Amino acid sequence: MALYVQKFGGTSVGTTERIEAIAEKVFGFRKAGHDIVVVVSAMSGETNRLIGLASNITDEPGQREMDVLLSTGEQVTIALLSMALQKLGCEARSYTGSQVRILTDRAHTKARIQHIDEQHVREDLNAGRVVVVAGFQGVNDLGDITTLGRGGSDTTAVALAAALKADECQIYTDVDGVYTTDPRVVDSARRLNHITFEEMLEMASLGSKVLQIRAVEFAGKYNVPLRVLSSFQEGEGTLITMEDDSTMEQPVVSGIAFNRDEAKLTISGVPDTPGSALRILKPISDANIEVDMIVQNVGEDDRTAFTFTVLRHDFKRAGDVLRSVAAELGAREVIGNEKIAKVSIVGVGMRSHAGVATKMFEALSNEGINIQMISTSEIKISVVIDEKYLELAVRALHSAFELDKPLVEVEARRNGLMPAASS
Amino acid sequence: MALYVQKFGGTSVGTTERIEAIAEKVFGFRKAGHDIVVVVSAMSGETNRLIGLASNITDEPGQREMDVLLSTGEQVTIALLSMALQKLGCEARSYTGSQVRILTDRAHTKARIQHIDEQHVREDLNAGRVVVVAGFQGVNDLGDITTLGRGGSDTTAVALAAALKADECQIYTDVDGVYTTDPRVVDSARRLNHITFEEMLEMASLGSKVLQIRAVEFAGKYNVPLRVLSSFQEGEGTLITMEDDSTMEQPVVSGIAFNRDEAKLTISGVPDTPGSALRILKPISDANIEVDMIVQNVGEDDRTAFTFTVLRHDFKRAGDVLRSVAAELGAREVIGNEKIAKVSIVGVGMRSHAGVATKMFEALSNEGINIQMISTSEIKISVVIDEKYLELAVRALHSAFELDKPLVEVEARRNGLMPAASS
Repeated sequence: MALYVQKFGGTSVGTTERIEAIAEKVFGFRKAGHDIVVVVSAMSGETNRLIGLASNITDEPGQREMDVLLSTGEQVTIALLSMALQKLGCEARSYTGSQVRILTDRAHTKARIQHIDEQHVREDLNAGRVVVVAGFQGVNDLGDITTLGRGGSDTTAVALAAALKADECQIYTDVDGVYTTDPRVVDSARRLNHITFEEMLEMASLGSKVLQIRAVEFAGKYNVPLRVLSSFQEGEGTLITMEDDSTMEQPVVSGIAFNRDEAKLTISGVPDTPGSALRILKPISDANIEVDMIVQNVGEDDRTAFTFTVLRHDFKRAGDVLRSVAAELGAREVIGNEKIAKVSIVGVGMRSHAGVATKMFEALSNEGINIQMISTSEIKISVVIDEKYLELAVRALHSAFELDKPLVEVEARRNGLMPAASS
Repeated sequence: MALYVQKFGGTSVGTTERIEAIAEKVFGFRKAGHDIVVVVSAMSGETNRLIGLASNITDEPGQREMDVLLSTGEQVTIALLSMALQKLGCEARSYTGSQVRILTDRAHTKARIQHIDEQHVREDLNAGRVVVVAGFQGVNDLGDITTLGRGGSDTTAVALAAALKADECQIYTDVDGVYTTDPRVVDSARRLNHITFEEMLEMASLGSKVLQIRAVEFAGKYNVPLRVLSSFQEGEGTLITMEDDSTMEQPVVSGIAFNRDEAKLTISGVPDTPGSALRILKPISDANIEVDMIVQNVGEDDRTAFTFTVLRHDFKRAGDVLRSVAAELGAREVIGNEKIAKVSIVGVGMRSHAGVATKMFEALSNEGINIQMISTSEIKISVVIDEKYLELAVRALHSAFELDKPLVEVEARRNGLMPAASS
């Protein structure tokens, strides 16, 4: 019998009816003989209600007090879910973050977990109880309540799974898994049965909003098998684990990610001397603007062009900074474009396959799509294109890498890894 | 400069606007140089909202989980009040019951405070901070959250005041003090500047709902000066302390309490043998019916009559129990009356004054009011009368004991004890 940590987000526990449905699901696992730790978020809407109360009073609430306020959201859910489990005849006990205790640093509203005392939880599991833990929150060395920031409940679940050496950390969401690409863009997008942490990180950071990137990093670091699945439908979801060369044949490309949220800026005619990249990027970073892709072209006449992308809402601000940099450097000009999109192919398999980039560029060329920027990593190739070609590019790539075809042979082997029956 | 523990109930913190008003009031005391600990309840309506969520799920929620749920109510208030204080430029820090920590026994939903670690609070006070503590809640030796039951926030305030040896525990309510009787019944009812714990206990248990009886008992036990005053109006309220013979001349009677909430039952023709009182009352008590006044008359023919009062909503049930007892005992009959009221005069001064009862009975007789039952204690005389004479009786007694006249001489001395200017 396995030990599962199961995390249910705000929508999954949004009403008392849904909480009762989650209790039934959890009790089903318990009756099958598994040990279960449940991590829950605040009921959907509750965190916003609490933030609203605070903002009635002040625009700048103290962060320590904000954590005291917000942590009540999950505390309500753990009590209600435990009651619902007990009503079904399932022994259950709730714990707040400080009760567990989930020790964090002192960074209120964005604390990081440092240690988990898993003893209470272990004792309850040994006594046959389901343990219900408040996500998103912890306690620091001073005894103050802390919260982990956005997506913190996923992180709580993964950290608990790591501390308890759980067999799986299951993240229940409103989607039934990770897809080869966004099904709203490509009809034939398929749910992946399996993906690696690295691929998931590239997918997540590129805009697949299924899992918080921090939780995936955490799971990768402690090698906690992570499964994304639906709160509302049956199905085995997508399992995220370390790459395992011995049992899996990797497809070349696992998924197509994309992002419409960026803008690009080019500063050209920059004197090609050591330190010019630093002198361009430091003022941008000092202005708290995040930079994503960076490309530098070799130029003529000892001059070079330097292009990078920023989040679209930082476009104006970044342009202003860059123009004053250009004046200082004696650069020729600054040009920008907001109407771009980034498309990436992701897959651990591309490491050992030559020609992946060629195939990508060919597919885009066949559709007459011009590539404005290229950036690559070990398991990812990203291109920037005109925004209006985004859907066309994603569909072309999805088809070129045969993501719409069931990978019969490979999938069959993978299914051997799955605990539930395969689709 | 003094140390005050100030308690604000649910109505006083019912909206964020009211919380800001309370913050202004508290900051006023702080600016005057006083050390302030604030104890708050859940925002009015919040506890009922939480109970509603639980009752959507189950009629019999586990008590441990109920405490986890309900304790979030005060936690929200402490965070919001601390934010409001900080916004005014007043340093403040919030603590839940477990953070303080307020150690209780394990009796969930009705826990009793066993010990308070006042160290955190003391450190914050020394650093010039206002300390905001969640009322109604604590933590047991297992680390589980407990709640103190009805009126628990008053108890938290008094217990903190005792632990910190505060100069005064101030209970802010929606009335401006304790009155000689209910002003809705007697126009000329006066606010008392001062009353003793014993008198307050008799007044409270007789239906003056200003303070929870448990908090008054606690304050008396640890000799914590208690002041009842209004959250919304200025005024020095009513100070409740130990009797102090050296500095105060006691009025004979301090107040008139009354209660329309009782019913009386008589079992007559009971064989007058040892143990009959027990055989009558034990089945009543076994049925969880509370008995208030008990009177036994000497009868004739070795038979006696036995009369007692119960809460009116227990009248029917108590009658049923009593009739089966009557059959067993061979008693003659059971009669009852729901249309009664209890009127009591209360005052520590009556200890040393003869003739108080005579004066009371005379006042009632002058109005043609028949007395059905009499019961006395050291500082109280209660009578049961026909309900329709209640208002008349209260007015007659209020006037007979001169409660409508300002006690110029006595009050003048008392005012020497008051920190604020007297009315």
